[in-house]
Amino acid sequence: MDTAELQDCIHHRFAQVKFLENALTHSSFANEQDGNDDNERLEFLGDAVLELCISEEGFRRYPTAQEGQLTRIRSQLVKEQSLAAIARDLKLDKYIRLGRGEELQGGRDRDALLADAFEALLGAVFLDGGFDVARRTVLAIFEDQWPARAVIPETKDYKSRLQEVAQELFRDRPVYVLAGTSGPEHEKLFEVDVTLPGGEKFRGVGTSVKRAEQEGAHLALQFLEEE
Amino acid sequence: MDTAELQDCIHHRFAQVKFLENALTHSSFANEQDGNDDNERLEFLGDAVLELCISEEGFRRYPTAQEGQLTRIRSQLVKEQSLAAIARDLKLDKYIRLGRGEELQGGRDRDALLADAFEALLGAVFLDGGFDVARRTVLAIFEDQWPARAVIPETKDYKSRLQEVAQELFRDRPVYVLAGTSGPEHEKLFEVDVTLPGGEKFRGVGTSVKRAEQEGAHLALQFLEEE
Repeated sequence: MDTAELQDCIHHRFAQVKFLENALTHSSFANEQDGNDDNERLEFLGDAVLELCISEEGFRRYPTAQEGQLTRIRSQLVKEQSLAAIARDLKLDKYIRLGRGEELQGGRDRDALLADAFEALLGAVFLDGGFDVARRTVLAIFEDQWPARAVIPETKDYKSRLQEVAQELFRDRPVYVLAGTSGPEHEKLFEVDVTLPGGEKFRGVGTSVKRAEQEGAHLALQFLEEE
Repeated sequence: MDTAELQDCIHHRFAQVKFLENALTHSSFANEQDGNDDNERLEFLGDAVLELCISEEGFRRYPTAQEGQLTRIRSQLVKEQSLAAIARDLKLDKYIRLGRGEELQGGRDRDALLADAFEALLGAVFLDGGFDVARRTVLAIFEDQWPARAVIPETKDYKSRLQEVAQELFRDRPVYVLAGTSGPEHEKLFEVDVTLPGGEKFRGVGTSVKRAEQEGAHLALQFLEEE
């Protein structure tokens, strides 16, 4: 297999080309030809390599984004369709070794198969060169794919969610009562009691009434979700 | 916060203690006290760090395990309950900074909260020391938790699965017919046609009739699952 061009594309020269060949071997091929391992173990590894590289870079690029926004951006970048497009850019569909049945079936152009092969390729780079090399490869490939900003605002609105959940469970609303305040004037804390239609009570504390309500609603939601 | 003992436990001295403090700050605390970031972004990062470290080590420890077995072992090791137990061993429940409402609610002993804090801690180690340091920490912590062997056999039995699926969809069975053989005697390939009750036909190729049947069933399953 002549993979020089592919190795140029991913900016990594394999010391052990067997890793690369393994990544490009679909199970349907391994099934036909004894003595070939398929790429499924490497895919398992590469999936985790990709996840960490994208997580770390998202963490650095969007210093004010909340966890939910980072998760959403990552999902967008690593979804099957996106990875299949990258695989086609790298011409993995030309390199991959398929069995005859899979070939007849059109497997060479199947998104899932191509996305898996791309992940396996990253697993191979990681084994061959270590984490920093794999990271460099991932970051180069994804360079143009990051959104300019973590646009979608994360609405951590526990109060609204509790409203919905309570309506569904009890056909009634939770009640919020300001229970008191504490602390000196310049760093006053507010305490709000949230009572569910079932009678359970939760105290939220925060630097504003709004925050205390949110915190109380959060506790109530945790309680309901653990029921 | 005196975290010397904790840092001993994880065999890592933080160069930037602020990462560690951040990992030990629950959102309920950040909500009460302005100027403290909560640990959710670090948890996002640490989750991916943990996944890669465990994936890589599983890959190395079980060189003959299939992807499905590796996935199962990993799930077992990183499930919430396991991580909460580790968090308690490290006494994270003593260190973590909670808001008053969460404290009253018993949050200090909640599995989900403790597991999240452990993941955040790994995110902090990764930021402070890099991947190799985080890996060393993870491997030391999980040292005794690996099963002796990847015991549960992975049954990649496509033929049985296709049987079930066909029964459900068509109330009928797929038909397997040996279509032919090819290649020289010492590396003969068998070709089997699998026909679904709906009439669709799939050709499996393999070094034995059994393998060819499995391959044909695999193709048929892919077809049905993409329907």
